[in-house]
Amino acid sequence: MQVLVFNAGSSSLKFGVFGVGTETREVFRGSYERFRAGGCEYRFRHRETDEQGAAEFDSPGEALKGVPAALKRFGLDAIDAVGHRIVHGGARFTSPTLLDDETVEAIESLTPLAPLHNPANLEAVRLCRGLWPDVRQVAVFDTAFHLGNPAFANTYAVPAKWRDAGLRRYGFHGTSHKYVAYRAAEEIGRPLSDLQLVSIHLGNGASVCAVNRGNSMDSSMGMTPLEGLVMGTRSGDVDPGAFGFLSRELQLSVQEIEDALYEDSGLKGLAGSSDMRDIEERASKGDPHAQLAIEIYAYRARKYVGAYAAAMGGLDAVVFTGGVGENSPSMRRRICDGLDFMGLQLDHDRNMAVNLSDHAAPQIQAYGSRVRVFVTETAEQLMIARETAAALADGKPGGALRLPIAVSARHVHLSREAVDALFGNGYLLDHAIPLRQPGHWAARERVTLIGPKGRLERVAILGPLRQRTQIEVSRTDSFALGIDVPVRDSGRLEATPQVTIEGPAGSFTTDGLIIAARHVHTNPADAARLGIEDGEYVDVRVNDEDRTLTFGRTLVRVGKDSFTEVHIDTDEANAAGIEVAATGELVQV
Amino acid sequence: MQVLVFNAGSSSLKFGVFGVGTETREVFRGSYERFRAGGCEYRFRHRETDEQGAAEFDSPGEALKGVPAALKRFGLDAIDAVGHRIVHGGARFTSPTLLDDETVEAIESLTPLAPLHNPANLEAVRLCRGLWPDVRQVAVFDTAFHLGNPAFANTYAVPAKWRDAGLRRYGFHGTSHKYVAYRAAEEIGRPLSDLQLVSIHLGNGASVCAVNRGNSMDSSMGMTPLEGLVMGTRSGDVDPGAFGFLSRELQLSVQEIEDALYEDSGLKGLAGSSDMRDIEERASKGDPHAQLAIEIYAYRARKYVGAYAAAMGGLDAVVFTGGVGENSPSMRRRICDGLDFMGLQLDHDRNMAVNLSDHAAPQIQAYGSRVRVFVTETAEQLMIARETAAALADGKPGGALRLPIAVSARHVHLSREAVDALFGNGYLLDHAIPLRQPGHWAARERVTLIGPKGRLERVAILGPLRQRTQIEVSRTDSFALGIDVPVRDSGRLEATPQVTIEGPAGSFTTDGLIIAARHVHTNPADAARLGIEDGEYVDVRVNDEDRTLTFGRTLVRVGKDSFTEVHIDTDEANAAGIEVAATGELVQV
Repeated sequence: MQVLVFNAGSSSLKFGVFGVGTETREVFRGSYERFRAGGCEYRFRHRETDEQGAAEFDSPGEALKGVPAALKRFGLDAIDAVGHRIVHGGARFTSPTLLDDETVEAIESLTPLAPLHNPANLEAVRLCRGLWPDVRQVAVFDTAFHLGNPAFANTYAVPAKWRDAGLRRYGFHGTSHKYVAYRAAEEIGRPLSDLQLVSIHLGNGASVCAVNRGNSMDSSMGMTPLEGLVMGTRSGDVDPGAFGFLSRELQLSVQEIEDALYEDSGLKGLAGSSDMRDIEERASKGDPHAQLAIEIYAYRARKYVGAYAAAMGGLDAVVFTGGVGENSPSMRRRICDGLDFMGLQLDHDRNMAVNLSDHAAPQIQAYGSRVRVFVTETAEQLMIARETAAALADGKPGGALRLPIAVSARHVHLSREAVDALFGNGYLLDHAIPLRQPGHWAARERVTLIGPKGRLERVAILGPLRQRTQIEVSRTDSFALGIDVPVRDSGRLEATPQVTIEGPAGSFTTDGLIIAARHVHTNPADAARLGIEDGEYVDVRVNDEDRTLTFGRTLVRVGKDSFTEVHIDTDEANAAGIEVAATGELVQV
Repeated sequence: MQVLVFNAGSSSLKFGVFGVGTETREVFRGSYERFRAGGCEYRFRHRETDEQGAAEFDSPGEALKGVPAALKRFGLDAIDAVGHRIVHGGARFTSPTLLDDETVEAIESLTPLAPLHNPANLEAVRLCRGLWPDVRQVAVFDTAFHLGNPAFANTYAVPAKWRDAGLRRYGFHGTSHKYVAYRAAEEIGRPLSDLQLVSIHLGNGASVCAVNRGNSMDSSMGMTPLEGLVMGTRSGDVDPGAFGFLSRELQLSVQEIEDALYEDSGLKGLAGSSDMRDIEERASKGDPHAQLAIEIYAYRARKYVGAYAAAMGGLDAVVFTGGVGENSPSMRRRICDGLDFMGLQLDHDRNMAVNLSDHAAPQIQAYGSRVRVFVTETAEQLMIARETAAALADGKPGGALRLPIAVSARHVHLSREAVDALFGNGYLLDHAIPLRQPGHWAARERVTLIGPKGRLERVAILGPLRQRTQIEVSRTDSFALGIDVPVRDSGRLEATPQVTIEGPAGSFTTDGLIIAARHVHTNPADAARLGIEDGEYVDVRVNDEDRTLTFGRTLVRVGKDSFTEVHIDTDEANAAGIEVAATGELVQV
């Protein structure tokens, strides 16, 4: 499949052609930049050709009209699909989306969230729909990767009315962060879902992303691409008190302040230039403004590395990308130096010798550094091509099948060691109540859970005994205990919090405290009938009388003799208005 | 000395009497709070008395007038000095300052930086000056502790014009952060100058401070007390793009937005209450707004712990203080859980059993945790009393003595091992040039320094050889190399960056790269004559024809045969307009 990709900004137009099959190859790369009255510069790369020169277009919109001729000249006019980078997808667009009149309008309605970026992106969409009316076009959103960020990371502590109006954190550069995270996982040779990564995209715009076990958890850009790191011309983080001060002291309007924060701040505001190469050169010659700009830029990025490692509770790798991330060994070193205390040490020779040809992702940490450090090109356009093709290939109709739903109240699975400590050595629990899953039972005995905030009494014990004790509570239980409990799949207990369990013979403190991720138990026969596989995620839709609720990301667990049912916890049951037993619809995605 | 201390806010008046001698004791504690039309509540504590009730005052200003009578009633009207908490001291007030007409006026001129806090503080100052015209009054500033923050931490990446107008980070709660940091160092039994601490003040206002080797390095509040953590009613960090969004979408003015960020945001904005006890209670009963508020509050604080550990390049201890920090074990646990990867583990039983009577500062980390965790009361008023007394005791006239100044260009001190690697085994350097310090020399041989950005050629070697190689460069040199080099006293080489040295026989990579902190060499006789001691810090003032420059914090190093002179580096010489040799004035502080 031949996919044409557009990245249309307010000051440049980049496009590329990609062959998407089992692998994705870049076939052609083109750009129009440095627009001024009467013309611009272009560059086309195709096989051995690398052509640069002047073109007559004086805006990215005009330049778009030159694209068909350029493609024809290189024999690339047979296009199967077009992928567009769209900066802001708001809260609606969670994945690449086919562009039609309705979706274009929906994207347009998001302009208040990205007043500079979305209109430029949409101009390209409109022109392309006119130029290639029969070719399917797909929007790939910068925000989509971050939409699953937990609420505690994407919520500002502001009045409810403002949050209802749409003031929340989104995060950008999602396509880039996702790509480089996958690239790093590939090099490490472990699934991304096992890894805790910090991705540092340092381009003209710049952001850091905490990629926690495959998902974006947090990102330094917020509602707009203005928050976070120091950028070429954007300020990044600023005291919200600054607006009042500037309006009272310098009589500036909100618009004037915002314009200056976008256009005249960042490196440009600090040192008069938005070009890091220029600034590094001047700093080495003694320019104090350039020196300070570099220090602030690095310092802010380093703080985000520490913050996100703390947010995730660990760090396996840091990935540098974007123009500055790829090309400035001294900036990489400034950001990484001094992080030995968290297991990160750079190898200074490797850092100097980075070579990124052929999509390489070299590792530059020192021998023995627990945290790996990667440098890699971002390849956003390649990722857009891949996601465009995938979005068009998908399009399954989506069946709907009814499944019984079981509500799990808080309970523990105990190890032999735990039973001994709680009930006495060699004690045998009374397998009082058989459960629906064959061989499983609930004991007559109960235990108490103890946390810094409070106690949960008479907690059920489910059998059989396990190698490792696991304690499953609801989100509300976690607040009653006063412990921050992660949502985990059963059995994934690494780095889970500790809790004290109290029994008649003594107490036992152990890790293994989780909020169990919802899941579907099923057996091979039912799985085949339902068309689902072990380890897959499905959506389950519950129809209450008054409302419909869909549980996304429900893990499928196929066991030889398992009884087919969906397990959710009491909070989820409350949310869905489920009392004891119910059924849900399996929605294939 | 009997010191009366005032902490006058916009909604409460707190005051205390302290006996300051070799130790500082609290003699009396009083407060007027919950002002409404026609009255307020008061509480007085003195020895065994703990008296509470209603008073007729309807504002903090009125309540102040009741203070003399209250003191008289407890036999405490013999006051030697008054200390006032002043929230914002701007860039001018680096230390506690005697209040006179001029300083009061200067504080008043800072009102734009803290429009809510400074006027309330000043109202108390004015009334006290009227009530006790003969008693010396001292201002102790919340901002002073942070004024030494490095420029890279206190500078926003905004246009120069705004920075010139005063838009920069200040940081608050300085008295509290300083006190608890000292308290932690005392408990650890090591000098504060050896320690890297994060102090977390969680009161109605809340901030985190990185206390790096005794100095505040960074703090989460910025120009105003609005930035940073989620607070009772304040938002903390918000995307600077929020103002444009809110003004365009909800037609709000800057003033309306700012008011809501101060008064209706934070915990109150998220969960309708600014009281953490209330919110914790509701969360444990299932209130999703309260649950989210707790998660955001803890998450933001935890990110700052990680960020500041990364900023300092290490972490010895975390200190919790303020109402929430002192009283919520589950909040402490939420903030600390998951930081094992950086060597921090809580002991859950100790965390539950915290008892702060008698100014205790219990440690609550687990056995084996590399990072210690403390809980302690903040005792801001006690600290204000102590600083007030110290400010009045000081008042030295300050002599001025001329000293020769020597400019040190970049150089290295080599170990035997380094000489062997660079010049060949057993090589003897040519002690070509004797230096002014007896026994010291510069070698005929030179070396090259190599960093990720570039090389520095023909770098001097100074002798005699040392146990450990030390490389001294200027700030500009550090940018030419492309390495973030810390300012350190000579010989303090722990956790310094690596650099590669190249010689004719080979190259040698070693840590020990520093920007040497300026210092005064002197001998015992001259030190006695100058009235300075080894390890003390002094100011040195240089008078150029056009301008005067004072080098603060210049370390005194007394050596048996040392020649008395001030050593500064080439950047400092350039800043002071010193070409080769000059003299400076010693200013005692």
